[in-house]
Amino acid sequence: MSGNSFGKLFTVTSFGESHGPAIGCIVDGCPPGLALTEADIQIDLDRRKPGQSRHTTQRREADEVQILSGVFEGKTTGTTIALIIHNTDQRSKDYGDIMDRFRPGHADYTYYKKYGFRDYRGGGRSSARETAMRVAAGSIAKKWLFERYGVVIRGYLSQLGPIVAETLDWDEIANNPFFCPDASKVQPMEDYMDALRKEGNSVGAKITTVASHVPPGWGEPIFDRLDADIAHAMMSINAAKGVEIGAGFDCVAQKGTEHRDEITMQGFLSNHAGGILGGISSGQEVIVHTAFKPTSSMRLPGRTVNLDGEAVEVITKGRHDPCVGIRATPICEAMLAITLMDHALRHRAQNADVTTDLPDIPASP
Amino acid sequence: MSGNSFGKLFTVTSFGESHGPAIGCIVDGCPPGLALTEADIQIDLDRRKPGQSRHTTQRREADEVQILSGVFEGKTTGTTIALIIHNTDQRSKDYGDIMDRFRPGHADYTYYKKYGFRDYRGGGRSSARETAMRVAAGSIAKKWLFERYGVVIRGYLSQLGPIVAETLDWDEIANNPFFCPDASKVQPMEDYMDALRKEGNSVGAKITTVASHVPPGWGEPIFDRLDADIAHAMMSINAAKGVEIGAGFDCVAQKGTEHRDEITMQGFLSNHAGGILGGISSGQEVIVHTAFKPTSSMRLPGRTVNLDGEAVEVITKGRHDPCVGIRATPICEAMLAITLMDHALRHRAQNADVTTDLPDIPASP
Amino acid sequence: MSGNSFGKLFTVTSFGESHGPAIGCIVDGCPPGLALTEADIQIDLDRRKPGQSRHTTQRREADEVQILSGVFEGKTTGTTIALIIHNTDQRSKDYGDIMDRFRPGHADYTYYKKYGFRDYRGGGRSSARETAMRVAAGSIAKKWLFERYGVVIRGYLSQLGPIVAETLDWDEIANNPFFCPDASKVQPMEDYMDALRKEGNSVGAKITTVASHVPPGWGEPIFDRLDADIAHAMMSINAAKGVEIGAGFDCVAQKGTEHRDEITMQGFLSNHAGGILGGISSGQEVIVHTAFKPTSSMRLPGRTVNLDGEAVEVITKGRHDPCVGIRATPICEAMLAITLMDHALRHRAQNADVTTDLPDIPASP
Amino acid sequence: MSGNSFGKLFTVTSFGESHGPAIGCIVDGCPPGLALTEADIQIDLDRRKPGQSRHTTQRREADEVQILSGVFEGKTTGTTIALIIHNTDQRSKDYGDIMDRFRPGHADYTYYKKYGFRDYRGGGRSSARETAMRVAAGSIAKKWLFERYGVVIRGYLSQLGPIVAETLDWDEIANNPFFCPDASKVQPMEDYMDALRKEGNSVGAKITTVASHVPPGWGEPIFDRLDADIAHAMMSINAAKGVEIGAGFDCVAQKGTEHRDEITMQGFLSNHAGGILGGISSGQEVIVHTAFKPTSSMRLPGRTVNLDGEAVEVITKGRHDPCVGIRATPICEAMLAITLMDHALRHRAQNADVTTDLPDIPASP
Repeated sequence: MSGNSFGKLFTVTSFGESHGPAIGCIVDGCPPGLALTEADIQIDLDRRKPGQSRHTTQRREADEVQILSGVFEGKTTGTTIALIIHNTDQRSKDYGDIMDRFRPGHADYTYYKKYGFRDYRGGGRSSARETAMRVAAGSIAKKWLFERYGVVIRGYLSQLGPIVAETLDWDEIANNPFFCPDASKVQPMEDYMDALRKEGNSVGAKITTVASHVPPGWGEPIFDRLDADIAHAMMSINAAKGVEIGAGFDCVAQKGTEHRDEITMQGFLSNHAGGILGGISSGQEVIVHTAFKPTSSMRLPGRTVNLDGEAVEVITKGRHDPCVGIRATPICEAMLAITLMDHALRHRAQNADVTTDLPDIPASP
Repeated sequence: MSGNSFGKLFTVTSFGESHGPAIGCIVDGCPPGLALTEADIQIDLDRRKPGQSRHTTQRREADEVQILSGVFEGKTTGTTIALIIHNTDQRSKDYGDIMDRFRPGHADYTYYKKYGFRDYRGGGRSSARETAMRVAAGSIAKKWLFERYGVVIRGYLSQLGPIVAETLDWDEIANNPFFCPDASKVQPMEDYMDALRKEGNSVGAKITTVASHVPPGWGEPIFDRLDADIAHAMMSINAAKGVEIGAGFDCVAQKGTEHRDEITMQGFLSNHAGGILGGISSGQEVIVHTAFKPTSSMRLPGRTVNLDGEAVEVITKGRHDPCVGIRATPICEAMLAITLMDHALRHRAQNADVTTDLPDIPASP
Repeated sequence: MSGNSFGKLFTVTSFGESHGPAIGCIVDGCPPGLALTEADIQIDLDRRKPGQSRHTTQRREADEVQILSGVFEGKTTGTTIALIIHNTDQRSKDYGDIMDRFRPGHADYTYYKKYGFRDYRGGGRSSARETAMRVAAGSIAKKWLFERYGVVIRGYLSQLGPIVAETLDWDEIANNPFFCPDASKVQPMEDYMDALRKEGNSVGAKITTVASHVPPGWGEPIFDRLDADIAHAMMSINAAKGVEIGAGFDCVAQKGTEHRDEITMQGFLSNHAGGILGGISSGQEVIVHTAFKPTSSMRLPGRTVNLDGEAVEVITKGRHDPCVGIRATPICEAMLAITLMDHALRHRAQNADVTTDLPDIPASP
Repeated sequence: MSGNSFGKLFTVTSFGESHGPAIGCIVDGCPPGLALTEADIQIDLDRRKPGQSRHTTQRREADEVQILSGVFEGKTTGTTIALIIHNTDQRSKDYGDIMDRFRPGHADYTYYKKYGFRDYRGGGRSSARETAMRVAAGSIAKKWLFERYGVVIRGYLSQLGPIVAETLDWDEIANNPFFCPDASKVQPMEDYMDALRKEGNSVGAKITTVASHVPPGWGEPIFDRLDADIAHAMMSINAAKGVEIGAGFDCVAQKGTEHRDEITMQGFLSNHAGGILGGISSGQEVIVHTAFKPTSSMRLPGRTVNLDGEAVEVITKGRHDPCVGIRATPICEAMLAITLMDHALRHRAQNADVTTDLPDIPASP
């Protein structure tokens, strides 16, 4: 458990490097009896897959997942589910130029200091390629949460660099390569990304993830609050630099009368809390915003040092996402799903017998 | 480990309710040989203690900590350190009026749904009173980190409602009741809080926490990244709604050339990363911002329901912080300290033998 | 979690030294709604308490437990339950003679090597005094298991030195100071212990613990098997040197036809398995044997070295149990209860929805 | 972490069924810089491999391991090491006869009750085939422990059914198919097994595992004692029913003067403790005995019930080990290695700075 596992009862442990033979994960804790095929998992993998538009890395990976265990006659058995994706389009030679120099803003310096050596091939373990397995594992959690509790988990890109999505049309998201929910912003994003690519630069993005129909009462007190675990989950994604629940940093300037979500038996009157109070779900939509930084790999030269401590310039050629946030939507959904499923199981363990007289308060009307 | 423990190798497990006889915690994993007295811990507890100015709750708690185990002849023994604080100023009767009705924005509804009953006395386990033990445990981590590695952990209030601290004077922080580092903003904060209290309202705040002299190489890959664990730690504090590392949400609109921190052997040229790259410390200052929402307990009436599902109004009298963020600075410092100490120990376990030829890059000049 | 916690979902974390001000523990994971008072816990504590016959240590401890949190209006709240017992009869000066020399067979040498110093007062953290908190925590698990599932957990001393209990009369156990289920062996045990005490020597013992009415299906595959966790639990008790499930080491010379427990719908025809197959409960009685070594503290001199590496003799005066196994019965029951409750909760988390057409096979007729 | 992971800092998580496409594991926590190839791992796998003599199952598995990640340019990287073995000789049809009936003494009934369905193919996840991955993971731990600390881990079969090995010749062990250290008992074992196979029966065995040159000070207090974790590790192996440390159950009848290992600066004068005192290594040899029951799968008919609750007879044809203990030696070595490596890392985390004036006491002279 040295950092490569997530979840206490629904646990994902991953392996693999960007340029090794395969990446994979073991999912432990999925209850038995869930209908599951590779096709179920492939749907989300294909949404994250690189090379689907000119705005993401041109590395071509089929990302075909294989289930190695834990499923028998089309259903989960309750034992560990192993998933594997073979890497097919590695090009280590792309990295020859930078193998002795550190990329500013990249993990290569800190990995070197931690581990004492350099896996210069595309980031090795620190590569965002690892997130494919999060998506694969998350798709199992998504399916179970929906089938068992009706929970629906969806996400979208709410901001790309300076361009903010201003309307939320869930049906629009699959129509454009950005997961943008605002059709009017798709062309501006296309233009922005084309200019950015020409410039050789990169840019940040914000992803919003929403879980609907989460029952009230999921979460834990004190340290393993649902929001704390979600923050852990989201901040663990490559390039994430900020996480907000509900109103997030807008809370700072809010007064209590504005922030609190008043309650009626017909529903909460607002949802500034983002569906979580005291670390426990309220039954409202769980709303999470995650900030992604601009990729450090870019064609514009930067000042750095090499392994000998000499001042040098670095340019990253290779094949990179100029905006990692674009492909982050399915990853955020996956991490939210994994976190919620973990808490669903924790809730069953401890609170299976709890009943209350008061009906659940509906989500915001 | 049902939610009341934090840390993998330096583990804090807490207990206690706002209106029970005592609160306390067990700290497991502190190496032997650290000089430690109750006075060392009391310093930080006194900084968090309520009733120190008119701007915080008027509940009077001495918050005198007692060490029950794990220290022998003035030094830690390596075994569990138990800390206890006896509650002395409970007034459960303050809560008589609200015992059957839910406070909008408060954990009482979600606790009721999770646990099936109501501890109406001041929030019970969900009360911010629990954070005293975080501060106590954190002070041990702070001391060990400083004595063993020279790490210094400090925090300040960077925004209170609409008022933003614009200068950072570390020496000013202890001079005012807000932990504000900008002397010019203290009077405006006093005035704002006085008006707020008169109005019976509450307000949010932002706390910034900084760890200096963290060696490069602390952290884990993938899920237990240092930034992910910090996000977990901070979001687990009562009323926290957002966490940022370094540039945080500002990254969204940044380009890569702006965001990346260029490297020279004289030091990094900037610190947008907030001291963490790929989940691992870079040797720069670790910088964390945390957003706190306005307290839900306030004198202005709000719409809600009672245990019978009837529409009612709720007013919280009792004794409450109109801005919980004011006392949050030592709590944020404590959680950052606990997280860093946990990773320091993890680093020793796995990377004790690692050496590199390249000297550490200094922090920003 | 550096060694002082046990259980994954029902977690006990303990603190305290033999000669410090108090010992205690935090119990995390107890579901809400269990009726619980200090008297419920005191029953088992009194069974373990020292000084109840001339055959155990003459240290006088009331061992009065206090509940500090987690219980409200007589019921568990679902949050952490803190238990504390104040030490009242420490006599550190008893240890003056041995403070610089190691006792053969005692933890003082290994603690010194691990922690780098000596807490010479009665063993410090390694003292069996710590087991009082296991008993306290275990009594909560026992009560919950019985009320929720009808599980009954009982134990007895099955061998004391050379004297083997040959009949099992559950009603006899409380009638003698040894927890011996065979009335005909009580007087021989009295005589043996009197002679042993006069001699100044110590002796080993074997404890058998039985859980009845455990439903089938509790346990986990592979590493966290129910029997593996029980072995962990039992071997973690001071002075334990061996653990057996069911037939235990007798299996070595058994043939398959003898060992396997044949199955009929009226019940299993034998119980060599000790109620666990493949790490999962079968519905038969869970039967566990634990071997306890003779205490290292005794009046007969032994060869050893002191802190300066000089050859010296050591004699332990103080007040010690000449047979720690005598008081081990309630401790073994407690550890079995804690382990089973942990697995009961794990089962609820993952297998709450499982049903089968086949009725449960009854235990052996 | 639902049961398929072992180890806190050196963590092994396994997957795979007897008759699925592959089995494998992820090893997390191996420090960087250990030279490691597939050949290093294959050595131990070949020792455990089935089909090497007429006394073990005739299933033919090459058990060729592949390293999928965590090793770069011949050295471990510090990130997760994934190991995989493809199954090549499944014959599910062997199980057609028993797919609807439970084998007495087998996990199939308890798995059915826990998971609600039957994977009748060779035991599915409960098959001893899973232990191949323990051996693979253990070989990494063995290598690291030896190269970093000089720890040597070896095992042998100390009893097969009624035949007890009476001499310990480490060089003999590899010369016979039983891992028997007593050359004079090899022919009797051959004869016994031939008769047993002809009879269609199975038998138990005892394995002894020894770790030499373990430094003093490894282990934890209270619950995660080194011996408790070893007991957990050993009892988690398929068919294990008992675990002893050092004198084990012989302690029960020992007096203190006999049991305690007296100390001189030239060495301990005996090793009844099995190298562990108070849960912490003493520097003596760590000695562990594990009892394995006779396999439940055998050709002699037994009474049982089928899925419809009807009384039926069961005979297991397939290909099975008549004595699972024979191949258990490398598995026990692996589990001991994994446990010791976990504690070595824990020791580094917490006790890296500890020094003492007293030299280490040597092991028994």
